[in-house]
Amino acid sequence: MVVGKVIIYGGRGALGSNVVNYFKLHNYWVGAIDLAEVDQADKTIIVSKDADWSTQAATVMTGLEEAIGEEKVDAIINVAGGWAGGNAAHKDFLKNCELMWSQSVWSSTITAQAAAKYLKEGGFVTLPGAEPALRGTPGMIGYGIAKAAIHQLTKSLAEENSGLPSGATAIAILPITLDTPMNRKWMAGADFSTWTSLDFIAALFLKWTKGNDRPKTGSLVKMITKDNKTELIME
Amino acid sequence: MVVGKVIIYGGRGALGSNVVNYFKLHNYWVGAIDLAEVDQADKTIIVSKDADWSTQAATVMTGLEEAIGEEKVDAIINVAGGWAGGNAAHKDFLKNCELMWSQSVWSSTITAQAAAKYLKEGGFVTLPGAEPALRGTPGMIGYGIAKAAIHQLTKSLAEENSGLPSGATAIAILPITLDTPMNRKWMAGADFSTWTSLDFIAALFLKWTKGNDRPKTGSLVKMITKDNKTELIME
Repeated sequence: MVVGKVIIYGGRGALGSNVVNYFKLHNYWVGAIDLAEVDQADKTIIVSKDADWSTQAATVMTGLEEAIGEEKVDAIINVAGGWAGGNAAHKDFLKNCELMWSQSVWSSTITAQAAAKYLKEGGFVTLPGAEPALRGTPGMIGYGIAKAAIHQLTKSLAEENSGLPSGATAIAILPITLDTPMNRKWMAGADFSTWTSLDFIAALFLKWTKGNDRPKTGSLVKMITKDNKTELIME
Repeated sequence: MVVGKVIIYGGRGALGSNVVNYFKLHNYWVGAIDLAEVDQADKTIIVSKDADWSTQAATVMTGLEEAIGEEKVDAIINVAGGWAGGNAAHKDFLKNCELMWSQSVWSSTITAQAAAKYLKEGGFVTLPGAEPALRGTPGMIGYGIAKAAIHQLTKSLAEENSGLPSGATAIAILPITLDTPMNRKWMAGADFSTWTSLDFIAALFLKWTKGNDRPKTGSLVKMITKDNKTELIME
């Protein structure tokens, strides 16, 4: 029996596919949004990476209308994004800024738009922040500005008259490093015990979707992992 | 006699043209960047508003190379930007996010790139922040995320290895409302004595360009105006 409905933006990524599987295991209907089909999801809305911001938004909104019609969802979980380094003198500086913006901020504003229309009263929406972007990030400027924009968007969505349904909770998660296969491959010498586990985050999202122990709306939830244990610190 | 060289990004706007005139009056060579010719400037680099981020950047970098060649400038002052309101449920939400992004953040990242190449050691660069974006801005979400990105960019540029020349100062100014003709027209009933004067900001920029009383690099300089007097508060 289906206990609820959620949308996972970025459902094909390392964290996203983990979250999709976890919600399926717990009997949710799962709609995914990504650049290609997410097999485990009940429905995937596919956006083209070559489409611009407005076109991606239109694709998502039309796809949601077809998938859920007049109904509402319990949560919209955005875990889309990527990473690129580079300071202001880097030859690919602007290209990296564009990439980070389109991967993280486009999906987050589209999530906000979707939440305004399709989230239940008292529903849950989460956006992909990053702990380092609370300060300057000179070695990864494009990444930092995109994540800072998401942090501020989260705070806007949490306030009165943001357009979200009443009683909704909007938060951003701010991990430092996620324990993904790609990160293990590219940072093989790192101390993995300080990386945050995907299972841990998936379980948190389920708990918060159910309304248990939710952080205050507008929270930036820092995830500090040590000895494979993650502590949540609300910013 | 020319005492120095500065670049004003957004030199045609209300604040920008005031700043251009002020630096000309004080015997600076002034290069302007805007969507159309800035008559008072020594040289204007014209970017097309229909061009994308990378194309605008390329136009600016080529224009600067032609205008100043192997030389360096004392300051790069970005006062480009605009304003649009709207929450996440607004019909033009995405369009407004795009507009705010392209007006404010494109110009600011291009300013950063230009500063990495053309700013003198110990030079001065300033970006256009906004005081309200230090918190959530539910009624003007696109504006808020763009300005939050600029604040974080300022902090990145202020750190070691940001790509800026050594000893450079990067700050953002965070006014609440500027005393411009357009604002007087559209908010005719407001108390103008709480708005920040353009002359005041132009004089500050000159002082900071000369290296006098500069805020610490990375400062977000809040401008709080009361009874026509502006207090600076460093965030």
